[in-house]
Amino acid sequence: MTADTVASAVEGLRRVVPPERVALDPDVLRGLSHDEAEWAPVGAAIAAVRVRTEAEVAALVRVCAELRVPIVARGAGTGLSGGANAVDGGIVLDLSQMREILEIDTENLLCVVQPGVVNNDLKAAVAEHGLWYPPDPASAPWATLGGNVATNAGGLCCLKYGVTRDYVLGLRAVVGGPAGYGSAVALGRRTSKGVAGYDLTGLMVGSEGTLGIVTEITLRLRPAPVGHPRTVVGAFSSLVDAGRAVAGVTRRGLTPAALELLDRVCLEAVEEWKQLGVDPTTAALLLARVDSPGTAGAEEATAIVTEFTDAGAIWATESTDDVEAEALFEARRLAYPALERLGPVLTEDVCVPRSKVPAMFAQIEAIASRHDVRIATVAHAGDGNLHPLLLTPPGDDDARHRAMLAFEELLDAAIALGGTVTGEHGVGLLKRGGMLRELDAGNIALQRGVKDAFDPLGIFNPGKVL
Amino acid sequence: MTADTVASAVEGLRRVVPPERVALDPDVLRGLSHDEAEWAPVGAAIAAVRVRTEAEVAALVRVCAELRVPIVARGAGTGLSGGANAVDGGIVLDLSQMREILEIDTENLLCVVQPGVVNNDLKAAVAEHGLWYPPDPASAPWATLGGNVATNAGGLCCLKYGVTRDYVLGLRAVVGGPAGYGSAVALGRRTSKGVAGYDLTGLMVGSEGTLGIVTEITLRLRPAPVGHPRTVVGAFSSLVDAGRAVAGVTRRGLTPAALELLDRVCLEAVEEWKQLGVDPTTAALLLARVDSPGTAGAEEATAIVTEFTDAGAIWATESTDDVEAEALFEARRLAYPALERLGPVLTEDVCVPRSKVPAMFAQIEAIASRHDVRIATVAHAGDGNLHPLLLTPPGDDDARHRAMLAFEELLDAAIALGGTVTGEHGVGLLKRGGMLRELDAGNIALQRGVKDAFDPLGIFNPGKVL
Repeated sequence: MTADTVASAVEGLRRVVPPERVALDPDVLRGLSHDEAEWAPVGAAIAAVRVRTEAEVAALVRVCAELRVPIVARGAGTGLSGGANAVDGGIVLDLSQMREILEIDTENLLCVVQPGVVNNDLKAAVAEHGLWYPPDPASAPWATLGGNVATNAGGLCCLKYGVTRDYVLGLRAVVGGPAGYGSAVALGRRTSKGVAGYDLTGLMVGSEGTLGIVTEITLRLRPAPVGHPRTVVGAFSSLVDAGRAVAGVTRRGLTPAALELLDRVCLEAVEEWKQLGVDPTTAALLLARVDSPGTAGAEEATAIVTEFTDAGAIWATESTDDVEAEALFEARRLAYPALERLGPVLTEDVCVPRSKVPAMFAQIEAIASRHDVRIATVAHAGDGNLHPLLLTPPGDDDARHRAMLAFEELLDAAIALGGTVTGEHGVGLLKRGGMLRELDAGNIALQRGVKDAFDPLGIFNPGKVL
Repeated sequence: MTADTVASAVEGLRRVVPPERVALDPDVLRGLSHDEAEWAPVGAAIAAVRVRTEAEVAALVRVCAELRVPIVARGAGTGLSGGANAVDGGIVLDLSQMREILEIDTENLLCVVQPGVVNNDLKAAVAEHGLWYPPDPASAPWATLGGNVATNAGGLCCLKYGVTRDYVLGLRAVVGGPAGYGSAVALGRRTSKGVAGYDLTGLMVGSEGTLGIVTEITLRLRPAPVGHPRTVVGAFSSLVDAGRAVAGVTRRGLTPAALELLDRVCLEAVEEWKQLGVDPTTAALLLARVDSPGTAGAEEATAIVTEFTDAGAIWATESTDDVEAEALFEARRLAYPALERLGPVLTEDVCVPRSKVPAMFAQIEAIASRHDVRIATVAHAGDGNLHPLLLTPPGDDDARHRAMLAFEELLDAAIALGGTVTGEHGVGLLKRGGMLRELDAGNIALQRGVKDAFDPLGIFNPGKVL
């Protein structure tokens, strides 16, 4: 891209958005040009634009389409696959200032939000009306709902309550292709059911900004849960035993609201940092949260204790101490930042059929050993969604190289077990190769067909996903 | 189409499928050329082909692509929008013989089926393993899962348990377009979560055979429900009061497993036919089924009685008599066939935000009166999904004309209330006009883009949906 082209692009942007919201400063640009994915390539953007309205987004898309300037949309940048990383010669479209909750419809249990609303802010706002928005990625205190939609974010409670896509009833988006670049379209509905036409809403969810820019989201809500959740804890002398406990819980048809795993490396890192009083001497800890009210909840908790015990737990019990239960889930939430303190963390996000969780844990151990890589594992174990975290000493290039080999082998192991290379983080940049190995050629051809139909100019987040 | 072209097409079909499964007999063809939609146009097919394997489907699609012969896939033909109606010069692809349950995975709570498996047959098969496949369209005793997938079928229990799309984890399909006509592709996954690429599985669900031919379906299952369901009944002196009760139940965050409505015309027709002992003197009956176990279920039932009473019910009570409760739900199931005995029934399928149910009922009454059309209403009221059934005396062309005007006005009324023209039956032929009025032009352009990308030759169920 020549300096002249850049100048004329910037001039175009400034015609449609006030100049003070078109950032060119290299430091500002650098900060807005990447997400949290370790070692994913970051391109050199020509500008970052903070938008406030759908009309601005539409005008920007028209300008960028005319000049063939790539657009990378971003919210809070908490992604873990590089999906929001800038591309060379493109702009970063920062939607974090579009953060109004436009409507909370208590009559129909839904809300309408702008994409920059933070997940936890929405949770708090709807809680005031006795309502609940379940999807709870670990990044919920910072992540925007637009980003959640882009990646089809999951979290702890999706085991029982589903992922982001299950809550998106409708969208507004600025698109291109057959609708014309810069067209704002309404997709989906406000009703609880509807089959008028193809499910374009579901198609946009998880598309990582490659099919258009989401400008408004209509989300289904649930009544706030009633009653007091129960916590079941089990300690295991091996990850594989813990995996067998998870398989047992699934086979028995138990559906806790969360079923999380932490391995010893995680527990040690959290304990060293925060001194929550969690015993870090076991190989794996399983935490189940049960939110069924009354007797049903009590029975479910007891059945989970039994499954843990039958799988060979060192000990398993329902925690009757709220402080202890809270500390355990706090340890789960803090595992990732606790490990990041020790050095760069390459985050894996494989998902396998739940009966294969023990086999996947065995693979993780084998791969860690084969490549001499330290791997800590946290997992939404009940979903079969495992996050092996590859730890590398800061500045150790050889360790980094070994970690990247292990990363790809973990993907292959998950595929071989009938799983997927990404359960909830998205393909972004880091999983493109893995996705090509997971999906058959015909599937990829159809994916490409969708992309080409929606974005024939290839300006929406090019190089991501496909 | 000339006789020569037809002959060469038939010859082509017989090269890839044994001749005894290529039906040309006009009577056989007529029987396989339409679904249950009243007054939807039916084209003249050149042949009906019974397939047994994916390889046969693939070979047929290649032949048809080469000769530009349209393909209309069908299962049991229980659709209500004309989606499976034959088109001129096309073939009918009958998938009802592909009816093997290929796998029931009790470890991972999923199953793999061929598209011709009947919904209730799958329910029975998985029940033997303590598992449950929830989607329950009224046609479940006959409808195939392939058809359920094609229309994204709903039913009674989707209020609490979701629609077909919520259960489809993955598909195999024979597609065209960028993958090449006749390619068999695997879409989706076997894991509970996954975000590798665009949600093409969700896109295929509800696409009514216009994007390809589904040849295998991987479905999520649930543990069989525990405990004894409760039934709450309320009788109302007006449909609008019943609608207010529905809105009240939603607003209070209650989630019964079903919340169904029957109006007086339905009750009379059922009683006259079957003498179930249901009192047909009220304007509307609401039936709620509560399946939460234990105290929670008891509290939910009581709360629903209260909402019914507050909305002005003549009476409302939890039925403690199993025989009575079963008779009431049987009346619900029999409403449609009972009305069909009286003459042609044009089935509406609007869905509105649940707070708008009373307003929609008022519109139904006004439109019935304005066009002098007898309308019976059954409804998945808790979803806001109403089925006004337009009754016409057999052979009365003027009544039929008035019914068709009322049909379109009902669609407009639903759109005006923020609803959709089809909650669960699909667009097919009958809702194409309504869909164009519901969705904005940009949305339709994107739909068209998807269709063109997946089926540039336009041979997959042409003229349906779009």
